[in-house]
Amino acid sequence: MVKLVALYKKPADVEAFEQHYARVHIPLVEKIPGLRKTEWTRFLAAPQGEAPYYMMYEMYFADMDTYQTALKSEENKAAGQDLISFAKDIVTLLVAEAYEDEIRK
Amino acid sequence: MVKLVALYKKPADVEAFEQHYARVHIPLVEKIPGLRKTEWTRFLAAPQGEAPYYMMYEMYFADMDTYQTALKSEENKAAGQDLISFAKDIVTLLVAEAYEDEIRK
Repeated sequence: MVKLVALYKKPADVEAFEQHYARVHIPLVEKIPGLRKTEWTRFLAAPQGEAPYYMMYEMYFADMDTYQTALKSEENKAAGQDLISFAKDIVTLLVAEAYEDEIRK
Repeated sequence: MVKLVALYKKPADVEAFEQHYARVHIPLVEKIPGLRKTEWTRFLAAPQGEAPYYMMYEMYFADMDTYQTALKSEENKAAGQDLISFAKDIVTLLVAEAYEDEIRK
């Protein structure tokens, strides 16, 4: 699958960030056409010291064509504009191929 | 689920790194007790500029107890020692809670 990965550094105002993320940003993201699943990652600790990121949010698409179509959608533009409005200085976006492997049940 | 996230910056010798990762490191990781699934992420691009990471490898456990037990295992020690031997300077480890959400089929 192809995924868009958003890595967030710790926001200055955690409470305001969390409220906006859950109430405004996620609902916009979930409207993006072709979005199959998401994974929300809450970092707890870094064995080597302080965690360099606060959280990660991953958006999965079936393949590159689906992702490219999603990129051009109005829904993606709306989610992107919202992202810039509240997280421009703390977010890093990465496009990736993801390979899941089930080890044992 | 609880996951251990390894973020890798681009290695100096990509070929040697890839060979060691696939042939030595992954087989050691897959022996860690309680490891349920893994996800291997290959970063392709960063919309904002150069991607700050080369790849990411995530190791999933059912819950924190399972992860803590895995941490103490001989298999985890072996995988950790191997990691230090070839990736000490380019890897960042993070422990996290992960929440997956299926949006649409």
